[in-house]
Amino acid sequence: MTVLDHPIIQGRGFRNVEDAGQVTGFSFQLRNPNYRGGAASLLDGIEVVVDGERIPDHVPLWTLQGRTLTVEQLRMSTDVRWQLDEPATITVPKPGGLAPGVHSLEVTVHLRRSYFPPPIARSQLTAARKLVLVPPAQDGGIRYGVSTYSYTGDIYTVMTLEDVLADVADLGASGIEILGEGNVPSYPAPDAAWVDSWHRLLERYRLTATNFGSWVDTTRWHDRDLTVEEGAEQLRLDLRLAKELGFTSMRPKFGVVSWDLDPHPIWKGAVERSLDLAAELDVVICPEIHAPTPIKHPVTQAYIDFIARTGTEHFKLLIDTGIFQTAPVLENAEDLGTDDEDEIPPPLRALAVPMADLVEVLPHTHFIQAKFFEIDDRLQDLHVPWADIVPTLERAGWTGWLSSEYEGRREPYRGSDQVRRQHALIRTLARKEAQ
Amino acid sequence: MTVLDHPIIQGRGFRNVEDAGQVTGFSFQLRNPNYRGGAASLLDGIEVVVDGERIPDHVPLWTLQGRTLTVEQLRMSTDVRWQLDEPATITVPKPGGLAPGVHSLEVTVHLRRSYFPPPIARSQLTAARKLVLVPPAQDGGIRYGVSTYSYTGDIYTVMTLEDVLADVADLGASGIEILGEGNVPSYPAPDAAWVDSWHRLLERYRLTATNFGSWVDTTRWHDRDLTVEEGAEQLRLDLRLAKELGFTSMRPKFGVVSWDLDPHPIWKGAVERSLDLAAELDVVICPEIHAPTPIKHPVTQAYIDFIARTGTEHFKLLIDTGIFQTAPVLENAEDLGTDDEDEIPPPLRALAVPMADLVEVLPHTHFIQAKFFEIDDRLQDLHVPWADIVPTLERAGWTGWLSSEYEGRREPYRGSDQVRRQHALIRTLARKEAQ
Repeated sequence: MTVLDHPIIQGRGFRNVEDAGQVTGFSFQLRNPNYRGGAASLLDGIEVVVDGERIPDHVPLWTLQGRTLTVEQLRMSTDVRWQLDEPATITVPKPGGLAPGVHSLEVTVHLRRSYFPPPIARSQLTAARKLVLVPPAQDGGIRYGVSTYSYTGDIYTVMTLEDVLADVADLGASGIEILGEGNVPSYPAPDAAWVDSWHRLLERYRLTATNFGSWVDTTRWHDRDLTVEEGAEQLRLDLRLAKELGFTSMRPKFGVVSWDLDPHPIWKGAVERSLDLAAELDVVICPEIHAPTPIKHPVTQAYIDFIARTGTEHFKLLIDTGIFQTAPVLENAEDLGTDDEDEIPPPLRALAVPMADLVEVLPHTHFIQAKFFEIDDRLQDLHVPWADIVPTLERAGWTGWLSSEYEGRREPYRGSDQVRRQHALIRTLARKEAQ
Repeated sequence: MTVLDHPIIQGRGFRNVEDAGQVTGFSFQLRNPNYRGGAASLLDGIEVVVDGERIPDHVPLWTLQGRTLTVEQLRMSTDVRWQLDEPATITVPKPGGLAPGVHSLEVTVHLRRSYFPPPIARSQLTAARKLVLVPPAQDGGIRYGVSTYSYTGDIYTVMTLEDVLADVADLGASGIEILGEGNVPSYPAPDAAWVDSWHRLLERYRLTATNFGSWVDTTRWHDRDLTVEEGAEQLRLDLRLAKELGFTSMRPKFGVVSWDLDPHPIWKGAVERSLDLAAELDVVICPEIHAPTPIKHPVTQAYIDFIARTGTEHFKLLIDTGIFQTAPVLENAEDLGTDDEDEIPPPLRALAVPMADLVEVLPHTHFIQAKFFEIDDRLQDLHVPWADIVPTLERAGWTGWLSSEYEGRREPYRGSDQVRRQHALIRTLARKEAQ
């Protein structure tokens, strides 16, 4: 089941439209701005202003209930309706369409309301929103995914799980990453009907299940640490669940014992006791390299040594792009009463890991989480240097996943909008690199 | 299907709790403020501040997955979880509970996060919200209902239809009014499965279907007015649909031909051609008395004359309480650049219809829509004089529906909150009158 965005102009469905190989315009979706649905014959056009350019109200085409009509055809229609729970698609002719990136849209819907006094019965309903046009992903090279983490706070409130998958598909990504203990109802034992519905959703939205987020909560018990065997049980439980849901990797987040995020010492034994199962299921266990731990660090080295020692194919690194940040997230720093970078506590400082370090560990890397916090209206990321990261990955021949992990402010619908910006930015950089 | 409120503290579920006939405290619901679900043993208490009074974190009880536990029991628990899609109920001991009305709640959830450095691993997640405690409705007298119109903008976006019904039941109302062309998917021909699900929802939430909103769009065709027979067809279609969904009255909103909201002249013929069907189905057709049309007015008189002339039992008035407004809705007036009441155009002025007029037409009245715009934190309605209306209805022995129709600002969740305020206010007045 899906719901609509609360803003009248919907986030999904904004794209250029083609006719016979030519881009002839763009389209977007609107929910009905009235408090009731009604006959389409009561609609009297829609004026659209895109980036300041006005398109008169008789020009855009309306798609309602699968039929595409001009305003004149709407007026004559006898069996078309704009329901409250069905968005309209508005198509605006514009040769060449719109450029990738953020666009400002304003609309005025004209509607004849019979129960308003005649002089004001042709009423205007207005709405405005910024929308993000995402260029299609190119074949080959980086594979584009999104994590449900990006929609924290929105999922189960203003979006259903299906809405998240629909959003991911709509922006042209093909991979979906989930949080096991977040998105699996009745975790750790979802019912069979839910598992079936999950696979149906993957099929409907043509998405590949990528990485399954897992936690080994070493402080789960109040009075003692988790044992190695308990840690291994958790890993094996999540490996089986990940496999059942179609995932090919699983990231366990182990409890830590230091400011440097040294994982709890049980990690090694717990992983060792799970490797056979991981091999049997062909699911790769991926420890996460996450700020404040850089690549050149004993924690990362210990993982690489483990790979070398065991010779396993089912334990590889997951890189979180927060380690490449060139600027701290000042939202946090401001809370500390300083904007002097030297005064920011080490865990919040920008690590700025060099690209050479990334290149070095890419052979041991299975998955990249594209962590980010804010991308502005000009598609500038305020913290993460995509113009360095994307060409580095392309030149190194990276064909694995880059999975969006938005971690900025949690106003409703912001995650959805920011993920679209990130894909617009990264794909634009990837196209440049390909040329 | 239901979704959760985006705010961490949920609007539903706020109530006093009783034990052996004594009010022993209050409870409310929280969605998980973390980005993942987790074992309940990781929870380390919740501090609650209600109207400035602090309840320490070890005191409140937690209800998760149907089990009610102390913090100590949570810590020891091995098979209880706080899922992302399941709210927790927090119960706070407080002899006598809380008074009806608006209360300020702040919470701090303590959670052990294993993957945070140990010194900061016991982390705090905070949230605050104002909640409305609604006293139970008394037996006899006014019957309390709510219209889906109150949730305009929220329904199908941040609330499902089931959420609306759950909200209405949670605030202790027993009647649900809907908009036919708003809330019936695939109107005018919902599929049988939806009709079944509607009846199941009524049963689950113990709600009575009250009034079915309908429209006769006399300007439906661009080049001519609707004919009498077309109007009658619309009425008969909606009467049948209303009956199928369990409603006992139907309000047709006819197109108008004047600033005074004189209904289009087809109204009389269209209703006449539908009276036999209304009688057969036992559904009462209710024309709406709505500002700027008062009770003492030719429009209202024409309806009363129609009742007298036809002798029908299936055509009665619906009163919208906007006609009793003692203050205009300044949100609109300010748009006109004035706050001088004399300069406000007549359609926006407060009509202030006297209570005596209401008493006079009550015998011809079937339904009352409790229109309102804003009720403040002290339960003062800024526009509608409930302290006059409620005693008038009680003294006149009104045992019909009073159905909330919130029409104020449409920020998400505001309708839900305002309807709770209205019921708290009206029921408090009704209790006073009963004493």
